[in-house]
Parts: sequence; C-alpha cells; structure tokens
Amino acid sequence: MKRTDVTARLLPKLVKASASAEQFAPSNIALCKYWGKRDAELNLPINASLSVSLDYLGTHTRLIPIEGQVDEVWLNGQQLQPGARFSRKVSAFIDLFRRDQTLCFKVETRNNIPTAAGLASSASGFAALTLALNDALALDLPPEALSILARMGSGSACRSLFEGFVEWRMGQREDGLDSHGIPLDASWPGFCIGLVEVDAAEKAVDSRSGMQRTVETAHLYQSWPLQAAADMSKLQQAIQERDFSLLGQTAEQNALSMHATMIASWPPLLYWQPDSVAAMQKVWQLRAQGLELYFTMDAGPNLKLLFQRQDRDVVLQHFPNLETVEPFGSE
Amino acid sequence: MKRTDVTARLLPKLVKASASAEQFAPSNIALCKYWGKRDAELNLPINASLSVSLDYLGTHTRLIPIEGQVDEVWLNGQQLQPGARFSRKVSAFIDLFRRDQTLCFKVETRNNIPTAAGLASSASGFAALTLALNDALALDLPPEALSILARMGSGSACRSLFEGFVEWRMGQREDGLDSHGIPLDASWPGFCIGLVEVDAAEKAVDSRSGMQRTVETAHLYQSWPLQAAADMSKLQQAIQERDFSLLGQTAEQNALSMHATMIASWPPLLYWQPDSVAAMQKVWQLRAQGLELYFTMDAGPNLKLLFQRQDRDVVLQHFPNLETVEPFGSE
Repeated sequence: MKRTDVTARLLPKLVKASASAEQFAPSNIALCKYWGKRDAELNLPINASLSVSLDYLGTHTRLIPIEGQVDEVWLNGQQLQPGARFSRKVSAFIDLFRRDQTLCFKVETRNNIPTAAGLASSASGFAALTLALNDALALDLPPEALSILARMGSGSACRSLFEGFVEWRMGQREDGLDSHGIPLDASWPGFCIGLVEVDAAEKAVDSRSGMQRTVETAHLYQSWPLQAAADMSKLQQAIQERDFSLLGQTAEQNALSMHATMIASWPPLLYWQPDSVAAMQKVWQLRAQGLELYFTMDAGPNLKLLFQRQDRDVVLQHFPNLETVEPFGSE
Repeated sequence: MKRTDVTARLLPKLVKASASAEQFAPSNIALCKYWGKRDAELNLPINASLSVSLDYLGTHTRLIPIEGQVDEVWLNGQQLQPGARFSRKVSAFIDLFRRDQTLCFKVETRNNIPTAAGLASSASGFAALTLALNDALALDLPPEALSILARMGSGSACRSLFEGFVEWRMGQREDGLDSHGIPLDASWPGFCIGLVEVDAAEKAVDSRSGMQRTVETAHLYQSWPLQAAADMSKLQQAIQERDFSLLGQTAEQNALSMHATMIASWPPLLYWQPDSVAAMQKVWQLRAQGLELYFTMDAGPNLKLLFQRQDRDVVLQHFPNLETVEPFGSE
C-alpha cells in the first residue's frame, strides 16, 4: 500500500488554510527497540517498541507559507539546496499533506541535540514537522492520526509525538492505521538518562539500511521478535511497579540483542567503536560494585546511560562529560 | 546417562597392561563453532561443528605408570597439587579408563600454544591424554571410539584427534556413540591461520559457563542451530570447491553469530576488548581494499585470521606480531 492511499484515509480532501506554525517534538530513546520492518513504504514494524521522550531535547520546526513552486528548507540556520537529501525527504513528506494543491513552505528545522551524542534527529524532526503541518493547514487531527502520519516520515517519529513513556503498538492492519504511538499513563520522577559521546571513526550505515541487511542476512534475527515481545511485557511491568533494576536490565539486554542481530549480519554490521566497548565495561564494573547503572544503544557507537537521580553524582564522577536528561522533570 | 555407562560400552572390562606412553594432539580452530550442549554430562552438542587442526601447535602428554593411590599431574613442567582444578579434571578422566583397578600415572602435559593467543588447551589436552591412555593401557581402540572418549573430557577435544579439516557430527543417540569427530578427506595447501593476541583485562567467563548462560538467557540462541546448520553446508561446499571467499565469509559470520548469542545473554557476555574491535575494523578495512582476509574468534578477545599464503606478506605488514600456522603444510 502507498503512503498516499493512507493519507487519503486520514486527511480532509482539501486543505482549509495555510498559515505560519511552529512546533517542537522531543527525541526519544527506545527501551525496547524498533528493529525491522514488515512494510518499508509505510514503516510498519515487525515488533512493538517502547520509548521515553527526552523532554527539552529534540527538534523545533517552523513553517512559513511562501509563494513559488518549491519548498525552502533550512536546517540549523543553513539553507539547503532543494536537491539535498534532507530537503527532498521533507518535501516528499509535505507532499502527503498538500497533495494536488500548490502550497509551498519555508521550513526551518533546528535540532538542539548535542552534536555527536548519536541521537537520531529524524524521529523528533518528522514529529515536529507533522505537528507544524497540522497547525499550518488547520487540520485539527487527533494525536493517533498525527502519530500515524509521522511514522510514515520516520518509523520512530510516531513515538516522538508524546512525552514520557510511549508504546508503539505494531498493529496488524495492512494500511497501518493501528500502528502508532500511545503515551503510557505513567510518570517516574528521578528517572535519568545520560548521553555518552563516542566518536565514530567513519560514517555508519544508516539505520534503514542496517535494519534491512539484518532482516535479510542474519539467521539470529528470526528470534528477535520473540525477544522484543518478552521485553515489552517486562518493561510495562517495570514501569508499573517502578522497578528500576527490571527496567534497566530489560532495556540493556534488548539493546544488546538488537546489536547482536546486526553483528550476526553479513557483511557484519558493528556500530561499536573500541571506546564503546570501554564504556560498556565501565558500566559493568560499576554495576558489579553495586551501582544501579544500565545502558542502551541505538544504531551508532554511543551509549545512553539509565540511572536514578540519587546516583547522579557517582555516575558523573565516572562519566564527567555526560549530558543528563530527566524526562519526568528535575528537582 | 553417565560417562561411566558410555565407557562401559566402549572399553574392555579389564585393562590388559600399563606402560609408559607419549602422544601429541593439535589444537583446533572451529570454522563452525560448537556452542550449546544438549547433554552437559557427555558434552553432546546442539549443533554440528567443523574445525581445522593446527598442525604442530597443541599438547604433548606423557603417561608414566607409578605406584601409589593418586596421580601426579605436571603442567608445563610444574607439578600441580592433587586438589588443583586441572589435576582433578585429569584424574576424573583417567578414572573412566581405569575404573575399579588401581592404576596411577604421572601425567606430564606440555602445551606449545603461544601464551595469550587465546587457544583453549583443553581440546588438544584431552585429545592427547586419550591417545596416551589408549597406548599406555594397550586398548587399541578405533579413532571414532577415541574421539567419543575425548569428547567426554572436553567437547571440542573430539575434533583434535585428527589433522586437517574435521567435522563433529552432532549425532542423535542418547549415549552419544554417534557424536564424534570425522576427518574430511580434503587438503588445502596455502591455507593460513594467523593468531592475533589481544590482552584480556580480566579473567573471562569459561566457555562451559558461557554456553550455559547463553542457552538459558538469550532468546536469540533459539536461531543459532539454524545458523550453524546453514554454515556447515556452506563450509563443506567451500572446502570441496576450494572457494576461499565462501569459507572466510561463512567462518566469520558463524563466529560473529556465536558472539552475538553471548552478547544477547543476561548478564551480557562480551569477550571482546576495545582492541578486539580495533582488530576487526582493521580486517574489514583491508577487505574493503580487496584483501581476502577473514577472522574467527572463540570465547575470548583474540582474533584468528584466515587468509591464503599468497597474501601472507601483506597480512604480516598490518599484523606484525602474527603467529602463522599452515595446517596443510608450508612451502
């Protein structure tokens, strides 16, 4: 099924208005990862996933209606060529909303994510763009519909529509109308995420291609949905019972299992750098000493630490340059 | 089933003689790994495996009958306490052969494997001990029976009974009498193995415990037998057709898949050091430049490089301290 067929079911036939709009959407860190698509066109996942949104870290997007035939795309204060990869992705996504109507925008995108922290900006970027389009075109769509639309821009963007813990239900429908983010009714004051920066020696394989290679070549991937399903239950239990050890263990094993499916691919897909391994070993040593410290990792060399506010000072002693986020508010 | 029940089926009831004996058995490097047991007492594997024996690198074992009630165990020129772990393992293995008879030995074991090269000495050690017992006790057992007996000392020892490429057929029987090494009728002049030494910061989890943890906690392990079965076919084809790329790719993906199952375990089992990752990256960079260079790894931080004699000089430029073995003879 095509993305345009899905939007035809969700959006009004004619856009009612076009005005300036500005929106923010947070980055999100998955505790159970999205890894593998059952539909590459619609970004429908093979497994459910669960994330926590990063409060103030994410993407600000401003839309300003302009005259002309092409969108004007600015990224972090720099105007991009219309043929640039990012410009084309943005315009193709706006196409889903404007359809046959001539409606062009100046799109200003600003990410406030620390450089090299290895947070994908596509999730917050497409979420913020979806929210801004909803305003600019006065669509007044419900959150689920916005999440579905954002998902078609970038899978994990469907989780960045919401704050706090967010579940992405994988859904069963071919059109994906049941595959979107749902915020969990749960708060966890004192929950901390720390971003460890590890330099990548060279440009990594992007996660879309990485996923595809894994699904196609790693025998071990066949057991991944099983792992993810088990982890979803454990994470929900951990959040409900505020069981930090269970949450940390589950998130770390989930991330390592995802990386394991990549490592088992051909050609091998190893996002880790020597320093990634050194940071993991440091986490394990601290945990062996009794510290409740866990990590998760996405398709990159960086670690995202999971810990509680009470341990923040100790963690900062060992990881001095850590950028810390408290998704449920700080003291 | 107990090990003594199996030996009762293989060995004559009474030992005929007891004399001095000396035997050598080579280390072996698995191209398709033995990872996971269906029977921990008999070391029966969940999957078939395939190795290449390391020519002159391995274990020399001498048995000398002595008076007394306990064996005297020497390792690399040093006498061990009877209560030492290694002594107890050796004596327990000899028990399988002497049964109720009082027959004690001085056991002199010497490994000529480079220190820190990360080659397990238990495979060559139990293979050499089995061969020496066969001589000392004048058992005159056929190679398959010796391989079965060695397997009960250490699983992969059943492959070290033979030179060259060796298949370990997993077998189906409960008593394991169909689970032993079989040498492949194949030679591959110019086939090279290079041992890269990477220092481990701390003592690793032994492979017996590592296997067990993986089988019990890693969801991804469920797909491992599938990977191994596919790799066994590819390796046999590669050996038959002398297709080095196919052999190298298969061995490397197999090793990485085995490590992937460990990484997906809980607690995570990562035998790699930062330098292991650096060495892998170097192999991948050289391969991207056209060099036919692959690696395999066992439950440790070291890489074992696979390449052909024609590329030896180039490989040595990039890995200057490499110990190189040509399992099918050098020029």
